[in-house]
Parts: sequence; C-alpha cells; structure tokens
Amino acid sequence: MSTVAADATEAPLLLRADADGIATLTLNRPAQFNSLSGALIGDLQAALDAIADDPAVRVVVIAGAGKAFCAGHDLKELRASTDRAFHETLFNRFGRLMLTLTRLPQPVIARVHGIATAAGCQLVANCDLAVCADTARFAVSGINLGLFCATPAVALSRNLGRKAALELLLTGEFIDAATALARGLVNRVVPAAGLDAEIARLAAAIVAKSPAAIASGKTMFYRQLELGLEDAYAYAAEEMARSMGTADACEGIDAFIGKRPPVWQGR
Amino acid sequence: MSTVAADATEAPLLLRADADGIATLTLNRPAQFNSLSGALIGDLQAALDAIADDPAVRVVVIAGAGKAFCAGHDLKELRASTDRAFHETLFNRFGRLMLTLTRLPQPVIARVHGIATAAGCQLVANCDLAVCADTARFAVSGINLGLFCATPAVALSRNLGRKAALELLLTGEFIDAATALARGLVNRVVPAAGLDAEIARLAAAIVAKSPAAIASGKTMFYRQLELGLEDAYAYAAEEMARSMGTADACEGIDAFIGKRPPVWQGR
Amino acid sequence: MSTVAADATEAPLLLRADADGIATLTLNRPAQFNSLSGALIGDLQAALDAIADDPAVRVVVIAGAGKAFCAGHDLKELRASTDRAFHETLFNRFGRLMLTLTRLPQPVIARVHGIATAAGCQLVANCDLAVCADTARFAVSGINLGLFCATPAVALSRNLGRKAALELLLTGEFIDAATALARGLVNRVVPAAGLDAEIARLAAAIVAKSPAAIASGKTMFYRQLELGLEDAYAYAAEEMARSMGTADACEGIDAFIGKRPPVWQGR
Repeated sequence: MSTVAADATEAPLLLRADADGIATLTLNRPAQFNSLSGALIGDLQAALDAIADDPAVRVVVIAGAGKAFCAGHDLKELRASTDRAFHETLFNRFGRLMLTLTRLPQPVIARVHGIATAAGCQLVANCDLAVCADTARFAVSGINLGLFCATPAVALSRNLGRKAALELLLTGEFIDAATALARGLVNRVVPAAGLDAEIARLAAAIVAKSPAAIASGKTMFYRQLELGLEDAYAYAAEEMARSMGTADACEGIDAFIGKRPPVWQGR
Repeated sequence: MSTVAADATEAPLLLRADADGIATLTLNRPAQFNSLSGALIGDLQAALDAIADDPAVRVVVIAGAGKAFCAGHDLKELRASTDRAFHETLFNRFGRLMLTLTRLPQPVIARVHGIATAAGCQLVANCDLAVCADTARFAVSGINLGLFCATPAVALSRNLGRKAALELLLTGEFIDAATALARGLVNRVVPAAGLDAEIARLAAAIVAKSPAAIASGKTMFYRQLELGLEDAYAYAAEEMARSMGTADACEGIDAFIGKRPPVWQGR
Repeated sequence: MSTVAADATEAPLLLRADADGIATLTLNRPAQFNSLSGALIGDLQAALDAIADDPAVRVVVIAGAGKAFCAGHDLKELRASTDRAFHETLFNRFGRLMLTLTRLPQPVIARVHGIATAAGCQLVANCDLAVCADTARFAVSGINLGLFCATPAVALSRNLGRKAALELLLTGEFIDAATALARGLVNRVVPAAGLDAEIARLAAAIVAKSPAAIASGKTMFYRQLELGLEDAYAYAAEEMARSMGTADACEGIDAFIGKRPPVWQGR
C-alpha cells in the first residue's frame, strides 16, 4: 500500500492500494471521521488525476479508514476562516473533484461501511456506483449546523426522488442502509462481513470488460443525461456506430459468436 | 383557528391555524371533497403570499377537512363556462399557485388522510414533502372524464418514475398509500391515528433548524434542478461559500464544536 | 392474424393481430431470440407508421414470439459490415423507431415474457408502459461484447435511477422481474400464466378512455419533460384550457356529473 500524499509529520491523508486492476483510495483521517480537509481534497484530486492517465487502473474504489466512511467537510477548518474567497476556493475545488469523478474514464465505486454524512453522503451519491454494509447510515446534516448542504443537494437530487432528497436535506435525519437502497443512493447492501467480497465481485465484473468501451460508455452516459430525447438518441446512435468500428467491439462480437472468451485491447 | 377568507354567507373555504411555527392550511369544502374552486385557489394563493412574508411561520402544512384530502378542480365550475379565456385564467392561476409552493421560503408538507385525485394528487406531488395515512389513496382521474391531467403530469413526472407517472395518467386508476411511498409520491405512510403525530414530528424537525438556511436551501434546491451538472456545482459552491458567512452557519458550527444547542437568528 | 411484412421465402418477421382496439405486434424471429435485424426494424417502423394513422387502434402491445422477448440487435448482421455509414444508418433508424414510439398517438405496452437484453431492454424502457412475467429477466449486455449500450443508456437513464442504470450498463448482469419493478423498468409483474390477462386488463383500461385525450395527453407528457418547471406549467395550463373546449371533456364531465357512462368522439 503506497501513500499518494502525506504531511511531513503525520500519517498520509489518503492511502492508495492497487490490485487486479482496482485502485482503492482510502480516506485516512479516522480520528476525524475522514472529514474532507482541504489537504485531503487535494490528495484525492491528485490521486484521481494520476489514475485518469493510468491504463492499469480499471476500477476505483473509495473507502474510509476507521469507524466512519466520511463525515463531510472539516468543520474546524471551515470555521477557522471568515474569508469568503477561502471558502469559495475550497468549495470550488470540491465541486471540481465531483466533476472529476464523473469524468474519470474508470468507474468509481463507493465502499460505505459506516456513516456517510453531509459532503460524505454527497461523495457516495456522486460516485458511479455504491455498495454499503448493512451497518452504514446516511445523513445530509449541514442543516443541523445552520448550513444547508447545497453541494450535496446537486448529487442527491440527481440520484434520489425529489421528496426523498428534500427530506434528507431539510431534516438532517439519518436513513439506514435499506432505505438508502430503496431510494437509489446505493446499488447494493450486504452484511458488513461480506462488504469486501461484494465490492471485489462488482469490481471484477467491470475489470473483465473492454476498458475502451467502459471509458467511452461512462463519458456518453453523463453527457446524454443533459440532452433532450431526440438529441440524446442522435448522439447515442453516432456513438454506437463509432463503437462498431473499434477493435474491441469486433473482437467481442466475434468471440461471442465463436463461443470463446474475448481478448481486449488496452484503452 | 382564524379564517383567511370566506364568502359572506358560507363557511370559510380555507382555514388557517398557527402553532409552534407551523401554519396549517385546511381546505374546507368537505361536502365537495375539497375541490379546488376558483375562490379556494384564490384563498390559498392569498394565504401563501401572506405566509411568505411572515417570519413566525417556519413550516406550512396543507390538510383537507372531512373525508377526502382533495378531489381536484371543481368540475361544475369548470363546466359552467365554455369560455376559453375563463379556463386559461383558472389554470394559469393554479399553475402560479404551484410555483408559489416551490418558491415559498418555508417547506410545505401535504397531510393526506383520504383520497387525493387529479389536481389534488398534483398538490401532493408539488408540495416539498408529503406524509399520508395508510387509508390515503391517489389517482389522476381526469382521463376518466375525457380530460388528460396535463398540469398534474408536470408534478408527477418530476417526482415519480416515468412509467409510474404515465400509468397513473393513462389509466386513471387508484394506487394505495404503500404504492405511493414506493414510487416517491409521499415521504412517509403511517396509521391514520398517528398521522398528526408524524406530521408534528416532521414539522418540528424543520422548525428546529435555522430559518435562513432552510429558506435559502429550498430556493437553491429547485433552481439547481434545472441546471446541468457543472453549472449546478458552480452555483452550489457559491451558495456554500455565501452561507459560510452567515451568522447562523457560524453559530451552528460553533455550537456543534462546543457541544451546545445553537441559537438561530431570524430569517 | 395478418402479416405486415415478410420475406418472399420466410415467415413474417413481425406479426400483427388486432382485437378490441388493441394492435399486438409480435417480433417473430424466435430462433434468433427476436433480434432486431434491419429488416425487422423496418417492419416495426412501417407497422407503427400505419397504426399512427389508424383511429381503430387505441393501444399497441409489443410482444415476442418463442422463448425470448428480444435479444437486441442482430449481431451477425452488425458484424457483417465494417462500413461506418451502414452502422450509422442502422442505429439512426433504430433511434427514429424509439422516437416514433414516444410520439405515437396510442400508448405502447411492452409484454415481456422472457429475456429482454441490450436493445431489447431498451425497447422495454422506451415503451410507455411495460408488464412482465415473473420469469422475465433484463440485461444491457453489450458491454460483455466490448460495445457499450449507448442507445439503451438513453432510455434506461430516463426510467431508472442513475446508479441502477449505470450498474446495468457497466456490468452487463441480469436483473430479475422483481428488481425491474422496484427500479421502475416495468409497471407490473405477474405470474407467467396471467400475463395476457394482465395486459388485456391494462389495455382495456386505456381503450375505455377518450382517444383524443389519450393522444394529446401522451404528446404533452413527453414534451413537458424537457421544459423547466415554470415553462412546463405554462404549457400544461394552456393544454388544460384547450382540452376543456373539446367535445370529449364536455361529454366526460357531463356524464360524470350525470352518473352515466360517457360516449367519446373519435380521435
């Protein structure tokens, strides 16, 4: 397990472990419930930027060290400044991190074993996929502190129904894992002891695919969401025709027809 | 319980009762299943306009008197005129009422104890939150009368999945409370005897929050829904930075760090 | 049962049977799991174009012959050409077919008795309504062949939550009927033996309605989805006022008030 960034005197804020095409990034501020300090946001951004250009990485998993998944922004750091420019810079960097996640060529899976609150809940919502333990709990708790979770609202309202998103945002109350599943915040809930196995299974299913097809597919998925139906179909048809000319589509179809396993090109 | 408007000779069409920061508006045409006559629409609009400027009101509850929650528009009134301008004015006023609900600084909770049909179902969908009794039932029944529920379609298609919304609109059939919950039309279902307690609990959770944070948060929630992802995050980041400068956010974070209850400013 | 199109030497690719206002179009390539060859796409387009102008048809049901509902595009046909223009034409024709389904005056119900994969799953998602047997299974399996299901992504992401849609698209894994229902891909799941009865019941509920109101309602539903809230309400209010002037709305309301069955005009 290497460290992508660390203070001179402290444990690294973010751990990275690579295996079987899967890069696992672990938020490593357990005593602070992995709250997203400016330094940790910077480390995450740097790690994702490096991964974007790394063809050996096929799936990214975001996890948390210790008891919590992530408790959101670092409140002491936020409150230490009264300079609006400081806050604007911080929240813009975090918004950029969210866009980086959706634009990364590799799918990103949130591995949620404990609480995910405020921007931590936003991180789950903003990942492409999420698997949680039955012990996980979710809240968008800024409103309890006089601070409506505006950036989390962006991710929540695009993943949950409108009333479910507003309930979280207006009440600050927790929902459990089963409710998170029913509302679309996570893909799967498993017993805590089986969380790593389920993550491994889901990640392996994606690693087995053509990396080029996954990368272009993820990109088109998010782009077409912002188009009207007619434009979306026109774009998708063009994308299908382009894909049919790729080596991996030819190989994949030939392998399927020939009843043999495909051999993919690199991305 | 005061009355915000009334005919000279009849019971008031809308009742308003205020307690503990909660304004409860009760549709009061029980013999007509609280159908939304032009006069009742006018009374609702006036009540909401007054509430918008009333800092003592922190949450609005919309309820219905008698057996039904609301059976939609007043069909006899609709049918009494064949003047298109009359109908345009009526439906535009109702559309304005729906926008007023989403733009109101205070969250609005629908309290649904009985049937909610056509524009009555739209009213539920258009409220920020909804709690219903297990005896509640929902339908978008205009299509049974040769009149597709076009304005309800706007609210339903933004709260339910596409197929669930179309099924309601095309068949006019009823769904029960559990189905309404599963599809996202309501937030919570409780036994009828516990409806007021659940509404009180949900409303109290919101009353406990900073009114300024709730008001700006509700506004940003609906605005960001209409933006693409990148613009939404840019807007949200600006809103977070602005919020960090408010007295309530400073107080809320200080109180949280100091493990004491916060004291909010007025809106 | 008539045939709308057929090779000179083969069984027709598409069967059409009309009864009680319901046109059932059956994909009839059972040995190929009803895969959507260019010829079958053409037959479907021609059948829908004819139905659009046929006031005797009030509901369309799309079904599949044999074991599968539909296994998507015809891979051998796709792979037989390396000409990008050929693929562009094919996928654009399929995109046009999808738009035709949403623009058809009559509601379209998918009758899913077996597997629906890739573009076959897209067909289900793109229909207005879908009823499936408990034996049905769904996957978006192009990614297994190195070909991200771009056009299916358009329909899936507009019917399912974002994470559920991405999971299907990135893993290529099957979901069962109950999961499809919970995620919004289908309206109803019934035991296989009861599938036709349930389709008949749902179709009859729509046939009983005013065809003019159904047609204008379906059109407005899809158009308003692409508008912001304020514009959507303005459009819907205008549509309501226009509808109030139609013979069927007058008849429907009069019949309701008079407690008698309505008699609709033609479309």
